[in-house]
Amino acid sequence: MQDWRPTLYTCQGSRGLRATWAAAEAGADLDLRMLPFPPRFQAPEYLEINPLGTIPMLVDGGSKMTESCAIAHYIAVKSGADALVVGPDEPDYAQYLDFTYHADATITFPQTVYLRFARFEQGKGLEEAGHAYAKWFGKRLVKVEQRLESREFLCADRFTVADICVGYALYLANRIGLAEYLGPGVVDYLTAMTRRSGFQKALALEESASKDAGTGPAIG
Amino acid sequence: MQDWRPTLYTCQGSRGLRATWAAAEAGADLDLRMLPFPPRFQAPEYLEINPLGTIPMLVDGGSKMTESCAIAHYIAVKSGADALVVGPDEPDYAQYLDFTYHADATITFPQTVYLRFARFEQGKGLEEAGHAYAKWFGKRLVKVEQRLESREFLCADRFTVADICVGYALYLANRIGLAEYLGPGVVDYLTAMTRRSGFQKALALEESASKDAGTGPAIG
Repeated sequence: MQDWRPTLYTCQGSRGLRATWAAAEAGADLDLRMLPFPPRFQAPEYLEINPLGTIPMLVDGGSKMTESCAIAHYIAVKSGADALVVGPDEPDYAQYLDFTYHADATITFPQTVYLRFARFEQGKGLEEAGHAYAKWFGKRLVKVEQRLESREFLCADRFTVADICVGYALYLANRIGLAEYLGPGVVDYLTAMTRRSGFQKALALEESASKDAGTGPAIG
Repeated sequence: MQDWRPTLYTCQGSRGLRATWAAAEAGADLDLRMLPFPPRFQAPEYLEINPLGTIPMLVDGGSKMTESCAIAHYIAVKSGADALVVGPDEPDYAQYLDFTYHADATITFPQTVYLRFARFEQGKGLEEAGHAYAKWFGKRLVKVEQRLESREFLCADRFTVADICVGYALYLANRIGLAEYLGPGVVDYLTAMTRRSGFQKALALEESASKDAGTGPAIG
């Protein structure tokens, strides 16, 4: 696997951070292609590679992936970073799966609805729809909150891709003005996650690659 | 695994159909607990079991799962229904992962935003926010559409949990008035998926269990 080096299209600080963070933790090398945000308007030629226009996208040989949590899990598996993944024979397999799906479908998506209506499209009279999903996000955090009451990590008493997937969702909330919904246990967890050298390495790599590409950071 | 019989809390026709469909295809038996929709208002005692108040929830020993796509994959793995899952050594592993995450995070969630603002909460003046996400959903179908241009199934030339996850999202769209966004290739695929005996068995089981419980079908 030493020569394994898939290509990641992403924007600095976007959900693609799940992929760069997973790669940093796994010791894997990605060919980073930084795009201006949002690429479907700022870099329309990207639509030829990814008709969805979304970021991130991982290209590995003939495979293209566009779901950040799937990509993070995939990078860990393909890098042989077994400790980052919880397998079917481990007691926390169910929780591992559940949190890696929960992270985007339940606690990231509502934040993007908030961003759209309450921030990006202010003045259209739909701000209330955005705030409704900020509140919805806050209520759905109960699962993560309860899980962390007696644990340092979400699953298997060790750092895994579940922490990467959920950690990014919490990091995003903090950045876009939804910190009020994060209880003290969640804040402590987020602090610990973002202090990890893998996370810091991913941030630095994205920043340096963005500078080289002349692109800026993404929001959301 | 013959005695494996986890408990599924769900509402008829909800995302829990991914779980009952996976069980039917895998030959697994679920202890079905049908709830009135939406349970967080109609059956508030359910919040003691699942503080999120969402359905479905799978309880397997000490594990609780609330993400329908994670549950479908888990049921297939735990039942030993290997053909329903694409493993890391198969060429379509990346696509399998990607579509099982894409199904809920990208093509089911926007439908629930549509349902909320354009249907359930009509009259609040936020209908436009709902319609914006219906359109968003339509645009994000391009990935599934292109994938199905030359394929009968999404991955690995056979029916897998990826078809269950995505199939339910398309089935939902058809039921809630978003059929206009489904192109002919997608409609043919959906027809083939819903004609499967596993799908029909799951529908019948849910209907019969709902009747026994005195509950009705869910929307969304």
